[in-house]
Amino acid sequence: MHSVCMRSYTSSVQTPVRVQPVAAPDQPQVTPALKTLYRGFEDEFLVPLWTEIGDLMPTHPRPGATPHVWRWDRLRRLAAQAGELVPVGRGGERRAIALANPSMGGRPFATPTLWAAIQYLMPGEDAPEHRHTQHAFRFVVEGQEVWTVVDGDPVPMRRGDFLPQAGWNWHAHHNATDEPMAWIDGLDIPLQYAIESQFFEFGRSEISEAERGTPDRSRSERLWAHPGLRPVAGLTSGRGSPLLAYKWKHTDRALSDQLALEGEGYQATVEPGHAAVRYTNPVTGGDVLPTIRAEMHRVARGSETAPTRDTGSSVYQVFDGSGTVSVGEHTWSVSRGDLFVVPSWQEFSARSEASASDSDSGALDLFRFSDAPVFEALGLHRHDAEDAVR
Amino acid sequence: MHSVCMRSYTSSVQTPVRVQPVAAPDQPQVTPALKTLYRGFEDEFLVPLWTEIGDLMPTHPRPGATPHVWRWDRLRRLAAQAGELVPVGRGGERRAIALANPSMGGRPFATPTLWAAIQYLMPGEDAPEHRHTQHAFRFVVEGQEVWTVVDGDPVPMRRGDFLPQAGWNWHAHHNATDEPMAWIDGLDIPLQYAIESQFFEFGRSEISEAERGTPDRSRSERLWAHPGLRPVAGLTSGRGSPLLAYKWKHTDRALSDQLALEGEGYQATVEPGHAAVRYTNPVTGGDVLPTIRAEMHRVARGSETAPTRDTGSSVYQVFDGSGTVSVGEHTWSVSRGDLFVVPSWQEFSARSEASASDSDSGALDLFRFSDAPVFEALGLHRHDAEDAVR
Amino acid sequence: MHSVCMRSYTSSVQTPVRVQPVAAPDQPQVTPALKTLYRGFEDEFLVPLWTEIGDLMPTHPRPGATPHVWRWDRLRRLAAQAGELVPVGRGGERRAIALANPSMGGRPFATPTLWAAIQYLMPGEDAPEHRHTQHAFRFVVEGQEVWTVVDGDPVPMRRGDFLPQAGWNWHAHHNATDEPMAWIDGLDIPLQYAIESQFFEFGRSEISEAERGTPDRSRSERLWAHPGLRPVAGLTSGRGSPLLAYKWKHTDRALSDQLALEGEGYQATVEPGHAAVRYTNPVTGGDVLPTIRAEMHRVARGSETAPTRDTGSSVYQVFDGSGTVSVGEHTWSVSRGDLFVVPSWQEFSARSEASASDSDSGALDLFRFSDAPVFEALGLHRHDAEDAVR
Amino acid sequence: MHSVCMRSYTSSVQTPVRVQPVAAPDQPQVTPALKTLYRGFEDEFLVPLWTEIGDLMPTHPRPGATPHVWRWDRLRRLAAQAGELVPVGRGGERRAIALANPSMGGRPFATPTLWAAIQYLMPGEDAPEHRHTQHAFRFVVEGQEVWTVVDGDPVPMRRGDFLPQAGWNWHAHHNATDEPMAWIDGLDIPLQYAIESQFFEFGRSEISEAERGTPDRSRSERLWAHPGLRPVAGLTSGRGSPLLAYKWKHTDRALSDQLALEGEGYQATVEPGHAAVRYTNPVTGGDVLPTIRAEMHRVARGSETAPTRDTGSSVYQVFDGSGTVSVGEHTWSVSRGDLFVVPSWQEFSARSEASASDSDSGALDLFRFSDAPVFEALGLHRHDAEDAVR
Repeated sequence: MHSVCMRSYTSSVQTPVRVQPVAAPDQPQVTPALKTLYRGFEDEFLVPLWTEIGDLMPTHPRPGATPHVWRWDRLRRLAAQAGELVPVGRGGERRAIALANPSMGGRPFATPTLWAAIQYLMPGEDAPEHRHTQHAFRFVVEGQEVWTVVDGDPVPMRRGDFLPQAGWNWHAHHNATDEPMAWIDGLDIPLQYAIESQFFEFGRSEISEAERGTPDRSRSERLWAHPGLRPVAGLTSGRGSPLLAYKWKHTDRALSDQLALEGEGYQATVEPGHAAVRYTNPVTGGDVLPTIRAEMHRVARGSETAPTRDTGSSVYQVFDGSGTVSVGEHTWSVSRGDLFVVPSWQEFSARSEASASDSDSGALDLFRFSDAPVFEALGLHRHDAEDAVR
Repeated sequence: MHSVCMRSYTSSVQTPVRVQPVAAPDQPQVTPALKTLYRGFEDEFLVPLWTEIGDLMPTHPRPGATPHVWRWDRLRRLAAQAGELVPVGRGGERRAIALANPSMGGRPFATPTLWAAIQYLMPGEDAPEHRHTQHAFRFVVEGQEVWTVVDGDPVPMRRGDFLPQAGWNWHAHHNATDEPMAWIDGLDIPLQYAIESQFFEFGRSEISEAERGTPDRSRSERLWAHPGLRPVAGLTSGRGSPLLAYKWKHTDRALSDQLALEGEGYQATVEPGHAAVRYTNPVTGGDVLPTIRAEMHRVARGSETAPTRDTGSSVYQVFDGSGTVSVGEHTWSVSRGDLFVVPSWQEFSARSEASASDSDSGALDLFRFSDAPVFEALGLHRHDAEDAVR
Repeated sequence: MHSVCMRSYTSSVQTPVRVQPVAAPDQPQVTPALKTLYRGFEDEFLVPLWTEIGDLMPTHPRPGATPHVWRWDRLRRLAAQAGELVPVGRGGERRAIALANPSMGGRPFATPTLWAAIQYLMPGEDAPEHRHTQHAFRFVVEGQEVWTVVDGDPVPMRRGDFLPQAGWNWHAHHNATDEPMAWIDGLDIPLQYAIESQFFEFGRSEISEAERGTPDRSRSERLWAHPGLRPVAGLTSGRGSPLLAYKWKHTDRALSDQLALEGEGYQATVEPGHAAVRYTNPVTGGDVLPTIRAEMHRVARGSETAPTRDTGSSVYQVFDGSGTVSVGEHTWSVSRGDLFVVPSWQEFSARSEASASDSDSGALDLFRFSDAPVFEALGLHRHDAEDAVR
Repeated sequence: MHSVCMRSYTSSVQTPVRVQPVAAPDQPQVTPALKTLYRGFEDEFLVPLWTEIGDLMPTHPRPGATPHVWRWDRLRRLAAQAGELVPVGRGGERRAIALANPSMGGRPFATPTLWAAIQYLMPGEDAPEHRHTQHAFRFVVEGQEVWTVVDGDPVPMRRGDFLPQAGWNWHAHHNATDEPMAWIDGLDIPLQYAIESQFFEFGRSEISEAERGTPDRSRSERLWAHPGLRPVAGLTSGRGSPLLAYKWKHTDRALSDQLALEGEGYQATVEPGHAAVRYTNPVTGGDVLPTIRAEMHRVARGSETAPTRDTGSSVYQVFDGSGTVSVGEHTWSVSRGDLFVVPSWQEFSARSEASASDSDSGALDLFRFSDAPVFEALGLHRHDAEDAVR
C-alpha cells in the first residue's frame, strides 16, 4: 500500500526550473538539412553546444535552487506527528524530514549540494547504527538528553551544540529521557548523489549498555576539547575531526569575546556588530568536514551585515533572537528555529531587531553551513563583498 | 524559428532512470493520519528520509549514467555536416557536439561530472576568444594545423597531443590550413553545472596577426617542456598547469619505455602488457587540471587488463589500435576514435587484438579522462582491483 | 673593563669533544708523496673525506652535546643575584642566563639547536621591546604578575603557562608586581646561529600605558583559546600561532582527562601511566613554532616510561613532582624546576616517585621542548621505541 | 703512522672567526660581586645573554663562512695525484676532496650547511656501495663513462649532467673506461653534522655484473624523464626524486629557449640576458632534494646580473665560459670548473666576458646549489633584489 505514498512523491517531482530564463544565442536558420542533422544528433545521443551554451555556461551562476524559508513551528509540529505515526528502525533508519527546495523538482535537497532535515526521536527510542560516506553533522536548536553514539562513544546533545560526523564513522542515537527531542541534520547527500560516490553500511541492531551511557562529556571531548592542545598519543583515525562535539558554552563565549574586543577598539569581528566563529578540525585547523563548512554568526542588537555573495550555497538556521534576512530579491522576518537557504551567488544580509525585549541580549544568532570546502578544494570559490555587490 | 530546434531538444529530455531499481525499505502502514501527514510535508516543501533512503543512500554507487559507446566514423560524419551547415561565431562560440549519455535525460553530459564533445573547425575558420571557470582540455585523435591560442600563445595541435586548459584562461582556435580538423574537448561542465560555480566571459572578437602564427612549439612548451626542469623566473599565473601541450612523441616514448623495461624484467607497467602515463602539472607534480585527470594507456598486442572499478566516472577514446572493452555488463569491439564511458563503480577491462596486422604494433592505445581529482580532494575515492571485483 | 669578563668567557671556550671517540678508517701509508699531497690540500683549503668520514658520517648520531642536569635552586639563586647586579636595558635586552652544555665549548647552547635560559625580572622592571627571526617561547615554573606584551597585546604569565613567540613579532615584558619573577625562555638560537639566518631589530624604548595593562586574559586568548573554534574574521598575520598563551588549567585538565580515560579502559595515553599533550598552532593543527615542538608529559605516581630514542635533541624542565630520569648512561633524581637535556639518539626514560607525600598527586610533570619540527620538515626524523632500543 | 697525518689536520683547525667583529653591548661595571656571579655562572655551566647577544643575535646574518674561490686546475691536479696515491675502498669509501672554507676552522665545510668535493675515480675502479641520510648529488663538469649505480640502476654521468641522490638510497660508482674521471659531489653534511641527524650504512662490497652495465639512459630516466608525464604504476619509494639524472641536453635547450624567447620579446628570463632553470622532483614539482636546491644559470655574452642577496649559502661552479663574479667585497675572474661560495646575506652578481672568442657562445654558465629548501621549510628565507641591496 505504501507504494501509493511513494507514487505521490514521485508525482510531485517537477522539472527543475532555472531562476532566470536563459536566452539562447542566435541560431542557424532552420533548413531541412539542419533538421536532418539535428535528427542525426538525436539518433547518436549527441547534443550540440550552440543550442545549450546559455544554460550550460552562463556568465555567472544562475542557481537552480530558490531562496526559501521553512518555519520552525511547522516543522516541529509535523515532526511531532511523525513521532506518533512513523516508527524508527532498520531500513528507514532515521525519522528525518528533509527540506525540499521548491525549485528542485521535489527532490529532498535544500540546495544542489546540501541536505538539511529535522530529526525527531521519541522518549526511550534508539536510531539504529549505520555508517555512510556522506559527511554529516547535528545541530541542536532546542532540547537535550539525546546522545549520539559514534564508534562507541556516547556524545551528549544539548541546545547550541554542534556535532560533526565525518563519513564512514559508525553512529547511532538514543533518547535517554521521557521527552521527545528534535534537532537538525546536515549532510552532503545531494553532492554525493550528483557525483555518485555513495557507500552505506548497516551496523549492529542494538548498541551495548555501555554505549547507552549518559556522560556529560564524550570521550572525544575529554581528549580533544582543550584549546591549542592535542594528545601526543596517536589517536586519530583519519576519518575527519576527532572532536565530536563543539559545546555551546565555548561558541557563546567566543562570540561574546569578539564583540567585547570590538567594543574595546580592537579588530575581532567580521564587521561592526557582526561576530562569527568557524568550527574547525583541531588536527588540521581547517574545515570541520571535507565537504561542509559550519559557522555561528552573531549580529548584535540593531546591527546589520553588509550584503555579500559567494559561489556555493548555504543553509541557515536561526539559533536565537529574531530579525530580518535578505536573500536575493527575498526578505523575511525570522525567529528561533527558522531555516532558510542562500543559493549560489545570491546576495545575502541579515539584520537583528533593534528593539529586542529587555529579557535577552537582542542579538540574532545564525547557524550557517555551506559547501565552501568543495569550492575551495576545486579552486572555484569567489566572494563579492559590499562594493562589488551593489 | 530556431525555437523549434530548441523545442525538439527539450522534448527529447527523458526522466533520468537509475540503472538498478531501488527497493524502498519497509514503510509504515498507510492510514488516513499518515496521508494527512504526507500532505502536510508536501505543503511545507518537506520530504521524509524513510521513503527515499534507498535511492539517496545506496549501499554502493548506482550510477545514473549508462555505459555507452559512440562510434568515431558517425561522429566525424555528423561533425563534417555541421561544418557545412552551422557557422562558428560569437554566441554559439564553438562547433562542438557533445556526447549525451542515454540515461541522463537528454542532457549533453557524458557522465554526471564530465563533458566530452567533438569539435570541428573548417579551413581558415576561427573560434572566437572567451574564458570560463570550467576546466577544459583538447585531445587530438587525427589531423593537424589548428592552433589553440591561450592568453596570446599559439599552441599547435597534432595527432596524439594533449592540451590542458585550466579555468579562466583566455583561449581561441584558428585553422591555418585548407583542411577541416576535428578533435575532442573534455570539460567539467556537468560538475560545475551541478554545483553552480560557473562564470563565463567573452573575449576579443578577433585575435591579432601575431597570435595567428603557426609555430612548431608554443611558448609554454619552450618554457616548461623540459623534463624535471622549471624556469627560475616567476612565470606561473596560478591558473593551472603552465604547460599547454603534451606532445605525442613524449607520450609515445614514455609508453614504449615502460613496455621495454617490463620486457627487461623491471617494474614499470601497471600490470603485464599494460603501460600507462598520467599528464601532470609540472609546478605541483599533481593532476593536470583541478577537476580532471588525464592519462594514456597502452595495452600491448594480445594483452588484457585486469578488471578494476573506481568511484567516479571516466570517458575513454581509442587513440590507436583495436580491441575489446568491457564496462559493467557491456562488451564492445572498438577501434580508432571510438568513445565510451565508464560510470562510477562499474567494472572495466580492455583487451587488445591478438592478431593485429603486420603493419602496426598491435597495441591498443586508450586515452582516458576522469573526475578522480574531485574524488581525491574530497576524500571520496575508492578503488577495487581484480580480487575485490570478482 | 668588561672586556675582562668577556675574555674570561672566551677563555672558557673548550674544543668540542665528541662523546665517543671515532675510529679513523684505515689510512693509506704515509709516504713523502702523500705528505706532499696533504700539504697541497692544506695550501688550497681542501680536506679529504677519507680521514674525516668517521666523524662526519657516523653510522648513527654521535651527539656533541652531553646529557646534563641543571638544578633549579642554583639557577634561581644566581638569577636573583643577577637581578641585584645587572640592569635590564637596551643592548643587553634581557636578564637571561643560558644553559651552556658542558661539551659544547662554552657556547650558551643547551643542545646544537636549542637555547634554554632562565629569565629574571625585578619588581616594576621592563624588558625593552625588540623582535628577531629566532622562534621563542616562555614557560613558567613559578610566579605570576609578569606580562609579555606581544605586538601590543599584554599576555599574563603564571605558573604552568606556555607562551609561544614566533619569529619577528615585537615583544617586551613588564613586571607589574612587587616581587621578582623567573621563568624559562626557549629559542632556536643555536640552529639559526649555525645556518646563519638571524635578523634582529630594536623596538620602542618604552611601551605605552595601555600595553602596561594587566588583563587576566590576553586579546589573543579571547580570540583563539576556544576549543575547535576560530574567528571568521581574517586576523592571522602569518607569523606563527596567533594564540599567545596556553594556560595551565587547560593543560592540567587535558592530562587529567587522559589518565582518567585510561583508568576507564580507553586508549588515551602514550603508554600506561604516561599522559602527554602537545601545544599546537590552532590555524594549522601543527607544531606551535616552526622549529620548536613543545609538550607537557605527566608520569603518574609510581609509573615509568619505556625507553625511547629520537633523532634531534630535547630540553626538559620538571614542572611538578619528583622522580628519576635516565638519559643515555646518566641517571638523576630530579624535582621541581630542574632542567636537563636529552641529546640526539640518546635513550630516555622517566619514573615518578612511588611514594609521594599524601599532599600531592605524586605525578611527575615534565615540560619538554625539542627541535622535532626541523627534523620532520627535512625528512630526518627517526624514532625507536622500547624494543628497538633494548 | 697515519695518525701523524690526522694530527696535522687537527692542528690546522683554527678557531672560527666571525667576518666582522661584534661590538659587545654596554656591560655592567665589573665589581667583585659581578666577578663572583660570573664565576658562579661558569661553575654551573651557564652563560649570560647580555655578554653574547651581539654575536648570537646580530641585526642581520654575519656569516662565519668567507667568500672564497677554488681553482679547477689545482683541484684537478691534486685529485689526479690522489688518484695515484690513495686507493678507494671500504672505510674511506670515496676519493673525495672537500672544499674547506678558510674561516671555518679547517673543517671540510664549504659553508655552514653545504659540503662540496671533487671526486676522482681511476679507470676500472669502483667506489663501494653505501647509503646515508645525507642528501647528495653529483654534477659533471668534464668527462664521461662513469656510472653511478643507485639501488641497482646504473646511471650514466657525462659533462653537464646533474644526478640527485636523496638520502638513504644505496649507491656505488664504477668507471667503465680507461680514463680517470672527476666530478663534484654536493651534500648537506655540515647541516646534518650540526643538527646530529646522521645515519650511515655499508652496502655490498661488490656490485653485480648487471649493475656494471653501461646503458645510455638509466631506468629512472626511461620512467621519469618525459616532460609533464608520470608513470601511473606506483613506483616511487618516498626517498626523494625518482629521476636520477638530468641530462645536459635538456638543461641546455631550456636555457637556450629562454634566451630566444627573451629575444622575441617575451618574459622568460630572470632578468635581461640571464636565463636560469631549477632542477625539480617531478613527483612534487618542488626542490630536487629536501635540503638542497640546484640550478643552472646562463649569463649571455656581455650581460651582467643585478646584485642580490639571500639568507642561506650557495656554492657555484663555472660550467662553461668565463667572466667575473662579485661576492660581498670580493671580485674574481673565473673560468670553467672554478668553484666559489656565496655566504649568507652576501651580495652576489656575475658578468660574462664581453669579448668571447668566436668559437663559443660567450655565455657564462654557472651551476649553483644552495640550502634554500631548509630556509623555506623553516620560514627563514629572505631575499633582497637590486634596489634593496644598493
